Amino acid sequence: MDEFSFIKWIRSNQKKDKNIIIGIGDDCASIRINDDNVFLVTTDMLVEGTHFDLKKSTPGEIGRKSIACSISDIAAMGCSAKYAVISICFPHETKTKFARDLYRGIQKMADAFNIRIIGGDIVSSKKTLVINVTMYGRNEGLKSIPRSGAKVDDVIMITGALGGSILGKHITFKPRLKEGLLLNKKFNINSMIDISDGLAADLGHILEESGVGAVLYEEEVPISADAKRLARKTGLSALHHALHDGEDYELLFTLSDKESKKLSAFRSFPARLSKIGHINKFKGIKMQGADGKLKRIKSIGYTHFK
Amino acid sequence: MDEFSFIKWIRSNQKKDKNIIIGIGDDCASIRINDDNVFLVTTDMLVEGTHFDLKKSTPGEIGRKSIACSISDIAAMGCSAKYAVISICFPHETKTKFARDLYRGIQKMADAFNIRIIGGDIVSSKKTLVINVTMYGRNEGLKSIPRSGAKVDDVIMITGALGGSILGKHITFKPRLKEGLLLNKKFNINSMIDISDGLAADLGHILEESGVGAVLYEEEVPISADAKRLARKTGLSALHHALHDGEDYELLFTLSDKESKKLSAFRSFPARLSKIGHINKFKGIKMQGADGKLKRIKSIGYTHFK
Repeated sequence: MDEFSFIKWIRSNQKKDKNIIIGIGDDCASIRINDDNVFLVTTDMLVEGTHFDLKKSTPGEIGRKSIACSISDIAAMGCSAKYAVISICFPHETKTKFARDLYRGIQKMADAFNIRIIGGDIVSSKKTLVINVTMYGRNEGLKSIPRSGAKVDDVIMITGALGGSILGKHITFKPRLKEGLLLNKKFNINSMIDISDGLAADLGHILEESGVGAVLYEEEVPISADAKRLARKTGLSALHHALHDGEDYELLFTLSDKESKKLSAFRSFPARLSKIGHINKFKGIKMQGADGKLKRIKSIGYTHFK
Repeated sequence: MDEFSFIKWIRSNQKKDKNIIIGIGDDCASIRINDDNVFLVTTDMLVEGTHFDLKKSTPGEIGRKSIACSISDIAAMGCSAKYAVISICFPHETKTKFARDLYRGIQKMADAFNIRIIGGDIVSSKKTLVINVTMYGRNEGLKSIPRSGAKVDDVIMITGALGGSILGKHITFKPRLKEGLLLNKKFNINSMIDISDGLAADLGHILEESGVGAVLYEEEVPISADAKRLARKTGLSALHHALHDGEDYELLFTLSDKESKKLSAFRSFPARLSKIGHINKFKGIKMQGADGKLKRIKSIGYTHFK
């Protein structure tokens, strides 16, 4: 099976509902409560061997990551995170200490972002550790920023630096909740997503949902020190890692040129910002090199089923 | 580890929040949106080998059950189910047909109860199939019925018949959503829970949360045909199966004697109803036999970790 075509098929089966502002296919769903208010929902399942390795991460780090991923999804809507429910499947022989350490990782992260844990489910399996977090956000009187709003001539911007997250950031990242909410409060952001599948893949999601294309500027993509370090091991370029590695959990967004100038002039933004490209009316992603030449790049990233 | 003491430990770590009407430890959490409205949330994780067996159930049946469990939790609050988000972890080698059949089981059940699926997560693992459903309900202007409201002298009632669900009902049960909402709309129900761990265990949850005890009438516990059939195989009594088997997904509730008479006089209730006992001020559960003698029974049922 292929997860993206499976999700498309699921989407095609859904009925309309006037209170569903954003349904399947964005970072969060957005549901109207009354005239001014919506609630946002996102769910993330983390599985041992796929999303974390018990030999490489502590139980606390794994707990931390499981909730951080969902906070990042709320950040990508420019909204604020409020409540979470947590399901955990522990292997039969799990020790109480392990379970508590894992939960403390979740709780510490929830506390740091002022999120209340309101429920959950604790079950067992023969072997595999699985954690599912469902997170609720509120829009705080703002609109929620969809993937589908990118407009031709929008500037493409990103927080932080990209690539090589496997060397540590995929576990230790801090979700950009404050940054997402600040962007939504002070600027007109047309579309936004968090980088979980990789820059090229996640930009691809924005383009597909918005029905537009993009040019990226090769020299402007912010490359992390870990991307460079990883490139020395893999033989691939650091740029390749910045484009195609997943789990950076930075915010990728588009806004008008005017708004992007306003943002660049805003001195107290709490993260590095880069203008990495622009939206056009063509399909797909092109990369503009230092020589001005354009070459096509594929919007591929991490996929679950090969 | 022990799941119940682990959940107690989690609960003891939670901070108060004025908008959390019901938090961890009930069938659903209940969160205040504004003066009249609350939203309810419940989450259930189903794991291959624990909650279903791929050799005994079709993918459609497994999908159906995964969402039916959560609908039953909303039913136990006397509220109505509205939205769901679904996470599925498929083993790597899963075929598209299997995935679609499973999802059709979920979708059909959602459609039958007028529930919209608004999001989810599709991931992979080496081996184990895991499904997590998070369901949202609305109170429809009513209060949500907690486990903690049982009062001394309340009558204990139950829908349907109990025991032997392993012979089929644990997969094919129809959640008592209509019945739960009807009970909440027309009668003053003091406490309610759905039978997932077994009558004795789930009554135990009501008693613990309410700080009361109970007497059950041996001759009034409604015993299903499957409990009798299973008893012939296991050598245990059919009553034992009715008391301790899990996954009947019937509604167990308590109400004043006056309200219970009103309910008994209500002719069009869509399910069998039985008065099976009463609440008292002592601790634990006692069973009253035909001879009038009381004996203590244990509130034990299914536990994940032995």
